[in-house]
Amino acid sequence: MFRKYEDLPEVEIPNDREIKLSDGTLREGAQMPGVVIKSKDKLEIYKYLHKIGIEKVENFLYNDRDRQVTKKMLDLGYDKPEVTGWIRAAKKDVELLNDFERINETGVLVSVSDTHLFDKIGFEDYEEARQHYLDVIQEVVDHGLKPRCHIEDLTRSSLNEFAFPLIEEILSISPEAIIRVCDTLNFGIPFEGADPYSVPDIVEKLRDMGAKDIELHIHDDYGLGVANVLSGFWHGANWGNLTFMGLGERAGVAELEKILLFLEDRVGIEKYDLSYLKEFAEFFEESAEYHVPNNKAIVGKNVFAHESGIHTDGVLKNPMTYEPYPPEKVGAERKLMVGDSSGKEVIASKVNEILDKIEADIQVNKNDQRINKIYKQIQEIYEKGKRDSCILDEELVEMMDDYFNLEVDELWKKL
Amino acid sequence: MFRKYEDLPEVEIPNDREIKLSDGTLREGAQMPGVVIKSKDKLEIYKYLHKIGIEKVENFLYNDRDRQVTKKMLDLGYDKPEVTGWIRAAKKDVELLNDFERINETGVLVSVSDTHLFDKIGFEDYEEARQHYLDVIQEVVDHGLKPRCHIEDLTRSSLNEFAFPLIEEILSISPEAIIRVCDTLNFGIPFEGADPYSVPDIVEKLRDMGAKDIELHIHDDYGLGVANVLSGFWHGANWGNLTFMGLGERAGVAELEKILLFLEDRVGIEKYDLSYLKEFAEFFEESAEYHVPNNKAIVGKNVFAHESGIHTDGVLKNPMTYEPYPPEKVGAERKLMVGDSSGKEVIASKVNEILDKIEADIQVNKNDQRINKIYKQIQEIYEKGKRDSCILDEELVEMMDDYFNLEVDELWKKL
Repeated sequence: MFRKYEDLPEVEIPNDREIKLSDGTLREGAQMPGVVIKSKDKLEIYKYLHKIGIEKVENFLYNDRDRQVTKKMLDLGYDKPEVTGWIRAAKKDVELLNDFERINETGVLVSVSDTHLFDKIGFEDYEEARQHYLDVIQEVVDHGLKPRCHIEDLTRSSLNEFAFPLIEEILSISPEAIIRVCDTLNFGIPFEGADPYSVPDIVEKLRDMGAKDIELHIHDDYGLGVANVLSGFWHGANWGNLTFMGLGERAGVAELEKILLFLEDRVGIEKYDLSYLKEFAEFFEESAEYHVPNNKAIVGKNVFAHESGIHTDGVLKNPMTYEPYPPEKVGAERKLMVGDSSGKEVIASKVNEILDKIEADIQVNKNDQRINKIYKQIQEIYEKGKRDSCILDEELVEMMDDYFNLEVDELWKKL
Repeated sequence: MFRKYEDLPEVEIPNDREIKLSDGTLREGAQMPGVVIKSKDKLEIYKYLHKIGIEKVENFLYNDRDRQVTKKMLDLGYDKPEVTGWIRAAKKDVELLNDFERINETGVLVSVSDTHLFDKIGFEDYEEARQHYLDVIQEVVDHGLKPRCHIEDLTRSSLNEFAFPLIEEILSISPEAIIRVCDTLNFGIPFEGADPYSVPDIVEKLRDMGAKDIELHIHDDYGLGVANVLSGFWHGANWGNLTFMGLGERAGVAELEKILLFLEDRVGIEKYDLSYLKEFAEFFEESAEYHVPNNKAIVGKNVFAHESGIHTDGVLKNPMTYEPYPPEKVGAERKLMVGDSSGKEVIASKVNEILDKIEADIQVNKNDQRINKIYKQIQEIYEKGKRDSCILDEELVEMMDDYFNLEVDELWKKL
């Protein structure tokens, strides 16, 4: 019997690796067309990530703004998120790290698909690309840095002809290298045996090669961001690189908050603090002028809102009927809305809320004649077809004034 | 070598069933808190679904508005989408279909989780629930209608104690019944063997029971909407019930446009017309005042926008580098934007675009000194930290005016 949240069975990820999360909001997120994250806000984001408990961030170091904010992050002295760098695969870019002796790791963009190798970068052939990448990785190692290899567009690459042999050589140069599976255009498929770009199969192949740390960076062009991350975890990847609200190029990447929620709420991992998520989203609305969609899972304004008859009725009886987890878990609140699909339950509930606020000495149930009249009045509004928004509390008060014989004129004003 | 879209390998769904799609925008979508779809717009939505080639829609028949718009849909006489009904599991609700002799199928809400059975509906025990549901299904069959059983909250139900035995009995009453797997709170997991709510395992169990038509209706609370639909198809489900842009309760459901795109672009199914998708989204912005998120996959304003240096450079050389498919496929257009992460390539490209528009007789490349100066000027704007939006074309023209010795004052005005 599952009638309480705590009764529901937990999901088991079929391997015993500790999963860790790295954030890409400050890098991939800041690249999102139309989004500009100011330096001072980058520092605030870093503080939020710290409060949530994210293990790592990656920073650009190309311009002064980025270098200064990186120094400020390091100066905070937090144990996590660990601050790491991000460079293109160019030997001279490794120098960018010289001023940052407290940074021990850098991402390196290792693009591997044919169109990236030959159209974007202009390599002559695989051999030239291979030699170039291995030289850069060697340079990173020679600088005393741990390379995190962002294997870009792996899921559209010639796997056996180029990408896998290259990764094998990288691991022989640097057995500690983190291999980041970049599903750059979301061509990866989250199912085993899906030929040729099955994320499970790719992850298992990397494990067979001896990669110790396998990270997932998954775009969401086909809507498979979260699933591909989880399918990687299912098969032994141990790092997820995510961005808050999925901010990123085009349709963005797998959302940090969704993976956090899955790990805590479904798997039972307790090391993160999700209660900051809603506030974190509000911070983006204010600082980056980023409009959070109302129906954005976890952080949208309306994901704990209920309007339709069946749903509100259920939630009023037991929130679990139509809420996947308690809103407080992510710092949010339930709200009931009266609209064209609302039934008498939600109207009665809202009316009672108002009666309570004005300290009237009555409460009604959904079968009350007055509720029925208000219900009909609301239905009429929508029948006329001119209304396309919800009924405001103020409007409901006006309707109540017609049917409830309460001398509360003064009190109405308080609402 | 994958350097053209047509070179990329297609994905094979490992069974040979024909996949069909039913739309829930008119029902689930209209229930979304804050969204009101007017009757006249419901008819327009139906026409769009017809143009795209969707096989089925489901309509409420409870109020006059819904009944009238349903009659108008039927009067259009389209072969598809087939118009079907939707009722609660109540014998009297079956009567709602009496006025619609051209409707041959109805959805029936068969809630099966413990909290739905006992908290929401108030059944005494499984036996009472079982008898009630079977009576209603029998009534539907006796009315000459095909039942489509919406097995609500199946993915949090007591599968073996209640849900599966009930479905088996439903199939014995009506072997043609469509079984809709409702992943109501998105507790389903898209991987085989995930205990106990693996969508693949549930679908295979339903096939073993002899269900002919298995449909997926998947919410997106954990971000697994699309993945759970696809995992169902992978294991033999043959219907997807989806909503446009995922409109629906809370975080909504799996998006119609994402599944359409996957089927056409990745699997190679050619029966749908995706070129209306962008226009369809614009229709929602105008009629339902629904704000489409800029980064919404496929239909968002910025999913074919490129701003950052590496991405724009790639796209200018071969769009395939950072576009998963040509924008025209879904009725959209590429756009380049100049922002804080833009490199000289995109600035040169925008400058050339403007030079071209004003019929100036020159073109520049990214190494041109003037481009370098404009690049630095733009970087300065963002260094100051006060700017949080992209550079407008008009602003770029002003900058060009400083560095390009062109007597084109009149022509600037034309832009």
